[in-house]
Amino acid sequence: MRHYARLFTQLRQTMVQAKTWVLKHHFEGFPKDGDFELKVVELPDFKDGEVLLEAVFLSVDPYMRVTQSNNPAFPVGCHVVGRCGWRTHTVSDGSDITRVLADWPQDVSLSHALGAIGMPGLTALYGLEEVCAIKPGETLLVNAAAGAVGSVAGQIAKLKGCRVVGSAGADDKVAYLKELGFDQAFNYKTVSSLEEALKNASPEGYDCYFENVGGHFSSVAIQQMKTFGRIAVCGGISLYNVTTPQTGPYPHLTMIFKQLKMEGFLVGRWEHKNEESLKRMLTWMQEGKLKCREHVTVGFENMPAAFMGMLRGENIGKAIIKV
Amino acid sequence: MRHYARLFTQLRQTMVQAKTWVLKHHFEGFPKDGDFELKVVELPDFKDGEVLLEAVFLSVDPYMRVTQSNNPAFPVGCHVVGRCGWRTHTVSDGSDITRVLADWPQDVSLSHALGAIGMPGLTALYGLEEVCAIKPGETLLVNAAAGAVGSVAGQIAKLKGCRVVGSAGADDKVAYLKELGFDQAFNYKTVSSLEEALKNASPEGYDCYFENVGGHFSSVAIQQMKTFGRIAVCGGISLYNVTTPQTGPYPHLTMIFKQLKMEGFLVGRWEHKNEESLKRMLTWMQEGKLKCREHVTVGFENMPAAFMGMLRGENIGKAIIKV
Repeated sequence: MRHYARLFTQLRQTMVQAKTWVLKHHFEGFPKDGDFELKVVELPDFKDGEVLLEAVFLSVDPYMRVTQSNNPAFPVGCHVVGRCGWRTHTVSDGSDITRVLADWPQDVSLSHALGAIGMPGLTALYGLEEVCAIKPGETLLVNAAAGAVGSVAGQIAKLKGCRVVGSAGADDKVAYLKELGFDQAFNYKTVSSLEEALKNASPEGYDCYFENVGGHFSSVAIQQMKTFGRIAVCGGISLYNVTTPQTGPYPHLTMIFKQLKMEGFLVGRWEHKNEESLKRMLTWMQEGKLKCREHVTVGFENMPAAFMGMLRGENIGKAIIKV
Repeated sequence: MRHYARLFTQLRQTMVQAKTWVLKHHFEGFPKDGDFELKVVELPDFKDGEVLLEAVFLSVDPYMRVTQSNNPAFPVGCHVVGRCGWRTHTVSDGSDITRVLADWPQDVSLSHALGAIGMPGLTALYGLEEVCAIKPGETLLVNAAAGAVGSVAGQIAKLKGCRVVGSAGADDKVAYLKELGFDQAFNYKTVSSLEEALKNASPEGYDCYFENVGGHFSSVAIQQMKTFGRIAVCGGISLYNVTTPQTGPYPHLTMIFKQLKMEGFLVGRWEHKNEESLKRMLTWMQEGKLKCREHVTVGFENMPAAFMGMLRGENIGKAIIKV
């Protein structure tokens, strides 16, 4: 979970209390209300070099366990992104937080640093550029396409001169994808045949496939790839919260005959490119070429509900908590 | 199926008869004797530009449908490799045959042009160099390791300074792998746990995995890959002759967390490199660094039996028919 925070210098004359969500039980299958507990804790005393953070926006997403590296230089009052857990206040030694871009423009909400101009946006960019090496004129398939990553992936592919087909699980999401400029979009829950929907959307097949779902969708989609197709395996939301592992047909023979490449990736791999990448995406956003709807839940108390809602696909765009 | 042939110039004063195996029924599940029929056919008259081929060695293997490109320049008496079907004599317009290396040494059997110094050897080489981009010091896992491709892949990896672990399905094959210099080899049919066998053979995991089998083996092996591991998907012999498609757990989450790359390939993709590659492998063979045992079946009549035996794993090394 990423976390926007303000930094304070304060002498801690008064004890600071933090609200924090703790996981009472590890999930069995899909998460339940009773798995979470809200606690109030008193923060420990400061040590030299530490800072106090106050959460401004929080993010719930299914890749909150991804590791990020450290950057210890934080001037007082700056905004940072960090993996501090589900809590309102945190004492940090700076090793788990990162500053947002230094010249963040006034007209762009800082919450986008948790979305299109943050890890989800970087994930979309690197999946297309580094993993798929997508080229102008190619056709991209993206699923969970109205989500934080998928919606940015589709838009970036359009900016690169590609044809983009998106799959989502609700009609309002499909409408959103068309608003974003996707060439084709469909509701995988209501089409009579996923195979037919994929064929109709791109009869000649797909060069690249940005995979956020896994499971049955992937087994059908791989059959629609063109020779030398590339699959960037970014997520597998259909596989996250199941009590028994899902099974499907082995992809080997299709991968051989079509000479497909399939690669799993984590965004941290290209961290050395993050600053340049975030600046590029920020420019696209300011030029109106990259849109990012946010699904904002107000109130720290509602964090588990927002998390479970995200897993059920209730959000369009990035799911954000405003404290 | 590849095919060694001599070329004749003859005026066809006498009609030439060819023996040919035809497929009576498409296989349902594993091939049966009754699926094949031996026929004698009279060859048609020559046309300008055509040549008459006589089979010297034939090869049975599970990738006989792979396409190869053309080379029309064939001096009389030269040896060629081609996809001419299961037959003793063939009239060809030159579009489906390729000459063997021009300076093939006397001390190397021409049958190796169907094995280590042919398509299986090239497949092994390209899978390691082009797909896995294997580096010295890395650990390679190869299954069906005593087969035509696997046995060459393991030896080339050793030549490149890698650690090599091989899996095969018989104790004499395991002994053969150790003879070839594999660091570790085991019989997957008799180990009590495949997972334990893979862990014991390389406790720190595998950088590269040359996949010839697919199915259950692949589901277990993928869990033993190191971060940034590469899987060259060359074959899936466990998946070829099944009446209902096999299923297994989806690999997506493992691929993401370990950032694995998995790529299917066909040997024809790097055809422009074949001449240089074959020369390199021929040198290795002459220097005694690359060994290639052959499983020779004598008699064209025994071709279906040799084919079914290969699918059952009865061969060590390349399965060859000597006419």
